[in-house]
Amino acid sequence: MDYPPDDVIHRLTKALGPTAIRPTQPGYLEEPRGLWRGRAGVVVAPASTQDVAQVIAVARETGTPVIPYSGGTGLVGGQVTETGAPIILSMDRMTTIREVHTDENVVVVDAGCTLAAVQQAAATIERLFPLSYGSEGTARIGGALSVNSGGLNVLRYGMARDLCLGIEAVLPDGSIFHGLKRLRKDNTGYDLRHLLIGSEGTLGVITGASLRLVPRPTDVGTAMLAVPDPEAALALYHLVQDRVGDGVSAFEILSGTGFEFLAEAGLPHKPVFDVRPEWSVLMELGLFGGRDPSLMLEEIFSEALEAGLVTDGVVASSGQQRADLWAIRETIPLANRAVGAVASHDVSLPLSEVAGFLAEAPRALAKVAKIRINAFGHLGDGNIHFNLFAPKGQSAKDFSALRETLSEVITEMVIARGGSFSAEHGIGRLKVATLQRYGDPARLAAMRAIKDALDPMGLMNPGAVLPEA
Amino acid sequence: MDYPPDDVIHRLTKALGPTAIRPTQPGYLEEPRGLWRGRAGVVVAPASTQDVAQVIAVARETGTPVIPYSGGTGLVGGQVTETGAPIILSMDRMTTIREVHTDENVVVVDAGCTLAAVQQAAATIERLFPLSYGSEGTARIGGALSVNSGGLNVLRYGMARDLCLGIEAVLPDGSIFHGLKRLRKDNTGYDLRHLLIGSEGTLGVITGASLRLVPRPTDVGTAMLAVPDPEAALALYHLVQDRVGDGVSAFEILSGTGFEFLAEAGLPHKPVFDVRPEWSVLMELGLFGGRDPSLMLEEIFSEALEAGLVTDGVVASSGQQRADLWAIRETIPLANRAVGAVASHDVSLPLSEVAGFLAEAPRALAKVAKIRINAFGHLGDGNIHFNLFAPKGQSAKDFSALRETLSEVITEMVIARGGSFSAEHGIGRLKVATLQRYGDPARLAAMRAIKDALDPMGLMNPGAVLPEA
Repeated sequence: MDYPPDDVIHRLTKALGPTAIRPTQPGYLEEPRGLWRGRAGVVVAPASTQDVAQVIAVARETGTPVIPYSGGTGLVGGQVTETGAPIILSMDRMTTIREVHTDENVVVVDAGCTLAAVQQAAATIERLFPLSYGSEGTARIGGALSVNSGGLNVLRYGMARDLCLGIEAVLPDGSIFHGLKRLRKDNTGYDLRHLLIGSEGTLGVITGASLRLVPRPTDVGTAMLAVPDPEAALALYHLVQDRVGDGVSAFEILSGTGFEFLAEAGLPHKPVFDVRPEWSVLMELGLFGGRDPSLMLEEIFSEALEAGLVTDGVVASSGQQRADLWAIRETIPLANRAVGAVASHDVSLPLSEVAGFLAEAPRALAKVAKIRINAFGHLGDGNIHFNLFAPKGQSAKDFSALRETLSEVITEMVIARGGSFSAEHGIGRLKVATLQRYGDPARLAAMRAIKDALDPMGLMNPGAVLPEA
Repeated sequence: MDYPPDDVIHRLTKALGPTAIRPTQPGYLEEPRGLWRGRAGVVVAPASTQDVAQVIAVARETGTPVIPYSGGTGLVGGQVTETGAPIILSMDRMTTIREVHTDENVVVVDAGCTLAAVQQAAATIERLFPLSYGSEGTARIGGALSVNSGGLNVLRYGMARDLCLGIEAVLPDGSIFHGLKRLRKDNTGYDLRHLLIGSEGTLGVITGASLRLVPRPTDVGTAMLAVPDPEAALALYHLVQDRVGDGVSAFEILSGTGFEFLAEAGLPHKPVFDVRPEWSVLMELGLFGGRDPSLMLEEIFSEALEAGLVTDGVVASSGQQRADLWAIRETIPLANRAVGAVASHDVSLPLSEVAGFLAEAPRALAKVAKIRINAFGHLGDGNIHFNLFAPKGQSAKDFSALRETLSEVITEMVIARGGSFSAEHGIGRLKVATLQRYGDPARLAAMRAIKDALDPMGLMNPGAVLPEA
């Protein structure tokens, strides 16, 4: 393990005080899927935006790379580096809910607040902060914005960027961008906020955000319905949208493999279907003004049964049952991890291409290897997590030589259908080569020009998103 | 009038054919408020994205500035230049609706399509393209995206950028950015789309867009209610939001001056109130699934009357009456133009600052001059058009010496309250100095670095957004 020169540590200690310097514990050097093993360096945890600016100043004075570290839940290695001796900049001391504006449906928060903390702040004023996913108790808002994370409510409320009215950030030149506006409309030049969001810490460090809250639906209903195939699932989605318009909060698809893996991994869950369906959907309605969403779901269920779009299902009749249905969806990633993936793909497709992709991909993969597929995710957004596993009795390691070929089959197919090889997880370090290979050349050139213009020393999360210059 | 060297015209003619070369008619050299008188140059109207790339190539070869010209409806002089002999690049031949994806709620269009044409394309598949404002029959989607325009439905559906899934553009280096994705989620590097949107043609020319459509509410209700003051209007807004959640499609505020000007300008409109109220609101609900929005508006009206938030009003009982109410709102800008503004301000404020601003600003302005104020606009978004006029019998010209001082009073007050001096109209050429003076320095430096990196020759709409280098 490399350590940065004593000089760097000395300067950081002098600028921020000794309490800001952290031991380089394993947490800072790992990521959830265990694909990367980071190097440090020194871990520094600033307590304020000014502190962050000081860290960047030290980085510039000493030519030391900075790896911003938020919740550490990212799945593409954006939070770890395998080269050099960087400054790991942890945001875990910046966790203040700065302002709550009830009359504006806005909160202003430190970047180190977890999503759960922001959700809680919204709940105290009877509003909803809809950015939500499995790791929300650990993921921090700064990281969520840096990668423009998605999750379970994108269909209705958009991605992280869509919930952000303004950001505060320290730019690579050490200056502080004071952009914590609480405005719905502000057309005053290039949207630096949207440029920093999704740039994964390569153009600066987000230190604060003003976030949009939404009215909390008064009535929520949830159903899990078995469908014959993804095409029927999409037809069902259109049916639901016709009936309830923008009241559809989530529309997720699950494959039979998901249920198989829950059993295989021994993860407890309440059974829903007598016969495990090959495909099913989990949908949620959030309504206002006295309409009963469960009743609407029952009606939709009946209509869809008659139309042959649904074969079986359950509409939750209690908050507990709703939670049980969601627990199934949220446990599937854990089951995947327990089984051990050969390769994972976070793809998105134009909605009308999803069914074709889900039909074609298994056939194409079967020509390469006999594998198991767990496809699941945010069908309403066209976002499928398409993960590959060894057959029962074999291990993911047996397939490591084939991993790249298998992923290439998926990526080529997704690109051919106008899709994206990274819908919500980002590029990190895992997909840098993929982006270089499949990205639009004009856009890649513009990205490189922007990176070089804003971070000419190349110190901000080097090697993430773009190759090191 | 300067003409570009014959060489430029010759090269353009050779590349695009003689039909692409247009006479420099006055339309291309004016803007709606008559504040600017542009110079040409040559007007060239490409028929394809490849043609646009050719125009940029000629511009680079000859060092000629390019002024992208879309619908010409912008209000800040972004579409005209008063210096040099530029190429005026008109998009009015690129008006094809390229693709309609019913199952995806997506259309892909040429940048030269008017908003009305896109709305029409959406209507044919029973969807809504919600970007809507007075000039929608003339404004073109490329320009709308370039300035990130707003309008009447931002409250529910967002600004132009929020309705755009992907863009195609010719970048300043002449390369074509192929970004016409139809994806809800695509986290693959810096969001060039969001950078180009709102950059007002200074970083490239948008040639096509894939646009998000939304379900068309099945039932629409509209009401115009008189309120005691803006604070009551905001309390009413919160009441409505509590009752119908995200079913509120529009929430506009009108001042008594607006009605006064309609009369003064002799513009016909159906009277609503017996006594002209000092303040009133126009609100619209768009609902799904059998709820009666007019009934809900009647209930809200009663409840608000009892709470003292409303003093009078009408809930539209027919489509014609809805149209009549909207006609009042949409005619006010024409009335303003007829009366003749001393100065116009398109400001936004955090919602909780709006009432304070509307109370304080007239007092502060009265210290400078006796003027009339017409404040109106998108209250739900915190966006107020705050326009100043001469007292009856005097002319705007009598106040031209005071214009700058009056505007400064407004701008300083808006900035002090965390607002924006340009909510939806953009910077253009009119507000370049204002942005330099009040913009965040770190952001301005980043903007300049980005501009210089992507357009090192400074040929793309020079003098708009940023001062000429």
